[in-house]
Amino acid sequence: MIERNPAFDNLAAGYLFPEIGKRRRAYAAAHPDAKIISLGIGNTTEPLTPHIAAAMADYAKGLGTVAGYSGYGDDSAGEPPLREKIASVLYDGMIEADEVFVSDGAKCDVGRIQQLFGANVSVAVQDPAYPVYVDGSVMVGAAGKTPATEAGYQDIVYMPCLPENDFFPDLSVVKPNSLIYFCSPNNPTGAVATKEQLQQLVDFAKKNGCIIIFDSAYSAFIRDENLPKTIFQIEGAKECSIEINSFSKPAGFTGVRLGWSVVPKALKFADGTPVQALWSRLINTFFNGASNIAQAGGLAALDPEGVQEMRQLTDFYLENAALIKKALEGENFRAAGVEVYGQGNAPYLWVRFPGKKSWDMFDKILDECHVVTTPGSGFGPAGESFIRFSSFGHREAVEEACRRLANLKL
Amino acid sequence: MIERNPAFDNLAAGYLFPEIGKRRRAYAAAHPDAKIISLGIGNTTEPLTPHIAAAMADYAKGLGTVAGYSGYGDDSAGEPPLREKIASVLYDGMIEADEVFVSDGAKCDVGRIQQLFGANVSVAVQDPAYPVYVDGSVMVGAAGKTPATEAGYQDIVYMPCLPENDFFPDLSVVKPNSLIYFCSPNNPTGAVATKEQLQQLVDFAKKNGCIIIFDSAYSAFIRDENLPKTIFQIEGAKECSIEINSFSKPAGFTGVRLGWSVVPKALKFADGTPVQALWSRLINTFFNGASNIAQAGGLAALDPEGVQEMRQLTDFYLENAALIKKALEGENFRAAGVEVYGQGNAPYLWVRFPGKKSWDMFDKILDECHVVTTPGSGFGPAGESFIRFSSFGHREAVEEACRRLANLKL
Repeated sequence: MIERNPAFDNLAAGYLFPEIGKRRRAYAAAHPDAKIISLGIGNTTEPLTPHIAAAMADYAKGLGTVAGYSGYGDDSAGEPPLREKIASVLYDGMIEADEVFVSDGAKCDVGRIQQLFGANVSVAVQDPAYPVYVDGSVMVGAAGKTPATEAGYQDIVYMPCLPENDFFPDLSVVKPNSLIYFCSPNNPTGAVATKEQLQQLVDFAKKNGCIIIFDSAYSAFIRDENLPKTIFQIEGAKECSIEINSFSKPAGFTGVRLGWSVVPKALKFADGTPVQALWSRLINTFFNGASNIAQAGGLAALDPEGVQEMRQLTDFYLENAALIKKALEGENFRAAGVEVYGQGNAPYLWVRFPGKKSWDMFDKILDECHVVTTPGSGFGPAGESFIRFSSFGHREAVEEACRRLANLKL
Repeated sequence: MIERNPAFDNLAAGYLFPEIGKRRRAYAAAHPDAKIISLGIGNTTEPLTPHIAAAMADYAKGLGTVAGYSGYGDDSAGEPPLREKIASVLYDGMIEADEVFVSDGAKCDVGRIQQLFGANVSVAVQDPAYPVYVDGSVMVGAAGKTPATEAGYQDIVYMPCLPENDFFPDLSVVKPNSLIYFCSPNNPTGAVATKEQLQQLVDFAKKNGCIIIFDSAYSAFIRDENLPKTIFQIEGAKECSIEINSFSKPAGFTGVRLGWSVVPKALKFADGTPVQALWSRLINTFFNGASNIAQAGGLAALDPEGVQEMRQLTDFYLENAALIKKALEGENFRAAGVEVYGQGNAPYLWVRFPGKKSWDMFDKILDECHVVTTPGSGFGPAGESFIRFSSFGHREAVEEACRRLANLKL
């Protein structure tokens, strides 16, 4: 009989979001009359915008014609016009088209990227963080030989990001030659690193032989013009960073599946070989490119009309976030000492319930408000006693959730 | 500085198909007047069929409406109606819907599946074989500590499949507790295993604690009703097999990206835990499901109209294959002792040029006929002196290629 990959043995029992789904379904089964509203997961809820939806419908129709048909591309990195357009429209020439690798989403690329480095690399993650960074490290064998304790995995360095440090970590805990996962705007905290903070991060990485995996999947929500939307606005970043991004949130492509990673030519392994060459080999072996229909949608999203539509769509979710923030600053919350974080540049609110456990608050809010949230402890040890509220939802659902939250007894 | 994953160090220099593309481009650059025809890669060329294309266009359009919008699904395994329909239409109830895991293509799943077993598993592959099985084993660290020699990788067992053994391997070379990659209809040889042969394979696997990764991506090309289209027609297969399949070839979805794997509930690791549970964890962590537009196309492909359209589309490519076979049995080939294999149940012809090297024949056919093929040695040591001809091409291009082949001087 064949053994399971021993690296998987130490995985925590379930991936966070299916666990939330399970609790929600169990609650719904026990309370069939409850009209449950989800402010839990980061799944988008609003229709695709007209220009983008029409482009994909036209492309799909065109696939039924000789002139419009296309199989897989020559390179799994994506159609050249899309790579060009991402480089020019979103990076304003800071990077080149052949440094853009189109993917089927940021999450999928996180899993693949960790494979470039294998089991022996040191890993540092923001704490709290999107669970896939840690799970990816566990599954590639880089998290250590033992299961996680309450403090996390043995071979992963957690960098606490708390209100107390302005959500920017103390980098001195990071070992030399580490892979550093960094997400800004941050999921789950909503914090956006400033240029000065990112310069500090890049300088640290360069000085200590580290590579930054910069997750900017929420960059389209940044409204403060002074905040950097990409790590490549920072001097020296090309020698030490991979950036991961996605059309999921700005264009509502969570189901359509389209993202990209930027792997600069200047990024090298210790032996001097380019990371890009191995990345290209990996995706050409294990990936055959994102769906061509999705790629047509990505091209349309970067037309002037598409860019405007994405702005409106992200504005809508930011308005939701503002409504939820207002509810969470209501009398009942304030009296209980609840702290609400979120700068208006991300679709998430990060809320501390002092002295409470995250899962207890999750259950309480589900039970009393019929609102699904995400327990902060699911994002790492430093997320304990926080709850993440997501702004992805229809307006009337968000408004109803806000009314219910106003009556939550704390 | 960070080291590259040492498992990657032993990868052969380039993935086969990009290498072929590179040679083709170099030839085209040096011979700008050459009208090159590709009978090389397995990329589909004919438009999507009407019912399927219309379904995806309508779905994409619907994503622009409140009623038609959808983000990612609750489970990365795919939309339940599609899982149901695959189980009922393609497996006729032999497997259950919750044993079907929808993917973005067979190639992508091969890469993910190898991760379930890690670096310590023994691997056996048919020789010749689709390169991703071996590359996947190398990249997960299961191929051994040294680069491949002409005989292949140290820790991979190659099972020669030659005309001399009717393309069915001697299983006695396989070590106990191995992962056995088996492809039928076979890429590249076009051979289809009989029920008796597959029963022998399943019996061997069960007796020796092996798991079969059965790649049936070309099953829709089988015209001989006596030949099995799925490993699950074989008694005992559920306890020892994962099957990988795809809409790429039957529906022309190479660019749209949609496939599936069947991971039966009865399949267990040595410790008795179900493989399915770990597979579910893996795809929910690193994959967010196939594009919902592609899934809508898959649903349409399994409607009666879609099934009929897929039959016509695969018939078209089989007719191409018959034309190429006829050309390869022409006087010039026969006089040179060239042997042509291909049973009429696969889109590939597998052709032996006795005493010649595959890459030499590749270059010769490119130079004299301006036809791109695939060198058999790229599929493994036993592929040396073979060439694979693909039937994916427009009819007029195939006919022109056949005329040119008739003039090839051998």
